[in-house]
Amino acid sequence: MDRHLVISSDCHAGLPPDQYRDYLDTKYHAAFDEALPLQIAAMTEASKRFLVDDINTEWRKGNEELLTGAWDHDARIKVLDGDGIAGEIVFPDGITEQNTPPFGASLGLPVKNVDPELQWAGCRAHNRWLAELVSMAPERHFGVALVPALWDVDEAIKEIRWAKKNGLNGLLLPVIWGDLDPYHHPKYDAMWAVIEELEMIIHFHSGPAPMEDYLGPMPAREDSAELPGGVGIYVAEVPFHLTRPLSFLIWGGVFERFPTLKCVFTEGTAIWVPEYLRLHDHRFEVTHYSQKLGDYRSHLSMKPSEYFARNVAVGASCMPRREAELRHEIGMGQIMWGSDYPHPEGSWPFTPDQMVETFRGLPEEDIAAMLGGNAARFYGFDVEGLASLVEEIGPLKSRFV
Amino acid sequence: MDRHLVISSDCHAGLPPDQYRDYLDTKYHAAFDEALPLQIAAMTEASKRFLVDDINTEWRKGNEELLTGAWDHDARIKVLDGDGIAGEIVFPDGITEQNTPPFGASLGLPVKNVDPELQWAGCRAHNRWLAELVSMAPERHFGVALVPALWDVDEAIKEIRWAKKNGLNGLLLPVIWGDLDPYHHPKYDAMWAVIEELEMIIHFHSGPAPMEDYLGPMPAREDSAELPGGVGIYVAEVPFHLTRPLSFLIWGGVFERFPTLKCVFTEGTAIWVPEYLRLHDHRFEVTHYSQKLGDYRSHLSMKPSEYFARNVAVGASCMPRREAELRHEIGMGQIMWGSDYPHPEGSWPFTPDQMVETFRGLPEEDIAAMLGGNAARFYGFDVEGLASLVEEIGPLKSRFV
Repeated sequence: MDRHLVISSDCHAGLPPDQYRDYLDTKYHAAFDEALPLQIAAMTEASKRFLVDDINTEWRKGNEELLTGAWDHDARIKVLDGDGIAGEIVFPDGITEQNTPPFGASLGLPVKNVDPELQWAGCRAHNRWLAELVSMAPERHFGVALVPALWDVDEAIKEIRWAKKNGLNGLLLPVIWGDLDPYHHPKYDAMWAVIEELEMIIHFHSGPAPMEDYLGPMPAREDSAELPGGVGIYVAEVPFHLTRPLSFLIWGGVFERFPTLKCVFTEGTAIWVPEYLRLHDHRFEVTHYSQKLGDYRSHLSMKPSEYFARNVAVGASCMPRREAELRHEIGMGQIMWGSDYPHPEGSWPFTPDQMVETFRGLPEEDIAAMLGGNAARFYGFDVEGLASLVEEIGPLKSRFV
Repeated sequence: MDRHLVISSDCHAGLPPDQYRDYLDTKYHAAFDEALPLQIAAMTEASKRFLVDDINTEWRKGNEELLTGAWDHDARIKVLDGDGIAGEIVFPDGITEQNTPPFGASLGLPVKNVDPELQWAGCRAHNRWLAELVSMAPERHFGVALVPALWDVDEAIKEIRWAKKNGLNGLLLPVIWGDLDPYHHPKYDAMWAVIEELEMIIHFHSGPAPMEDYLGPMPAREDSAELPGGVGIYVAEVPFHLTRPLSFLIWGGVFERFPTLKCVFTEGTAIWVPEYLRLHDHRFEVTHYSQKLGDYRSHLSMKPSEYFARNVAVGASCMPRREAELRHEIGMGQIMWGSDYPHPEGSWPFTPDQMVETFRGLPEEDIAAMLGGNAARFYGFDVEGLASLVEEIGPLKSRFV
């Protein structure tokens, strides 16, 4: 084979907001009709306040048709083929600030200023639509269901079973839990057991962080202006918040009790990994400095880095060359490239060139692992079934020499 | 000079709890009398629950007399002399779980489950007593006043001015702000201006973290047991929480607007520094991946690592050899050894041997900088005035060869 199998560990899909109505239980239609204009206004406001409207507008120019791949399957396949991508992991939130499910059922799964029942309804609407999308080419799309598990574990288990039955093999959990119970709480054990039983894959996706800390109260108090410098603090801190659930799963003994759980941390870069593992392994060593805290580790049979190697993969979308060079420190078997289509920070529409920039000159087998081999194995893609497609669309190995 | 000048960047002092009554405004005496037995019970409970009672008891055996140096000046001087320490930075909370000021005016300066007015009163009681202690040998003790600035900036400014006037040149700010305003809020600018004007030094001290996240609701709900694995998560996360204020000060532009502010981060190890600086400098570079977030950096004239070099020092108490070996990456001028007397994780009563273990074989000038030179310069100790004392008590340079 003279072409690479490419799996994008991070792609996004979502309907234009008004179209979610058809996937929502009818009893929520009135609430939906009331919320829709507010949601659209809020997205417009966010795009002005936080994302940079003109950069996004500029970037979208001439790409309008292929951006509809955020929801249109034919357009999506064209994009994947053009990028050389045989398989993809599909997260919610398509075009940034334009295709978000209703009622706070977005990628961020917020726990503040949302109604739990409505958020659940919005998640189900998205999951139903996503199951349809994935079913159009299940060998290429690995769908990630939205599961706001913090509100209600029984509901979460039901939704997880529904997702599996309907062809969605991944689930997205909230990164931020606010005052709700964090992931080492024993109440979640029933859910971990079902996820393990169904061989589904847990995902945390970067983005959420305690924005009130950075920007001030939201919604804004009358006496408050947006705090200066907050966006920089957000940029600097956001990888920490993505990886907090990992710390809770490791130290809370979740991977110890559920040894075949699989868990992915996506779009938080992979640069955090080496120091994260060093620090946590260091904390695992009992020293003169820590012994006064007693036995906080004998419930774990392995070092944090060993759980990481066994249970975790990293969705290193937007992978810069620096990360590819750190691959051995990050974990040669853990790191997975991603395109982040259709987000403006992703590689599309320049994916083929960006891939080369990131990987050129590295050993061919390492490139193969990062571009697709690791993801194919971790997610269980049918590599043989995809082989003829790869021969047609995959990037030529010779381009990376 | 054939001996090293040693400054401990991290020592603790505090009265036995009942003795704080004499330093408290009389109008709080009734509240104090009511709270004292509860405080003692809570400390006893904490020592059983969290710290390991038997390790501490074992460690204290035979050291009872010199442990009174937590509050008794003569005993304290004996300890410092025995350790070879010429000067020290004095934080609150003496013997662990035994000498804590009243009303939540402890090292942790909690913002939950405390009454702001009472916490202020407790802080003032401690500051008054500390000013007395420091005045007994001001050339050797650098006192750190407790300033719970989050509740009220005007009160904070008053207390800071009082502290300076009474010989305390440092102040301790809370690490955790809960729902209160974080440190990039413009309302604190008036306080930074006064601190700069008075040439005082800001301190953050490790320990505080969102314990509810780790251990469950506190005080415990009826339906909640302590969450398993929580102490491990605490150990792994606590350095992050210590350094959050640094991120807010840097990215919030505080060091930009107040270029001569000095700020110390104490007892969070120094191992976090190299990766912290790499990560924050990396975030400071505008890339394809971050440009959609707009201009979040033009209010800063320098890279995060440059503010760190100019405005920050690290109180690397309990410094293991690994940190001494990383000194150039951490910052040869920033890293300051500390004994952490009288805490059981500190070097006392084995300070002379532990120092040698940490520093043996390193270049003499580097040892001198880490053991005392950096702290002497940052804190402004009178090195010449201390010279004859150093000749008497300082560790022999030849021991480190």
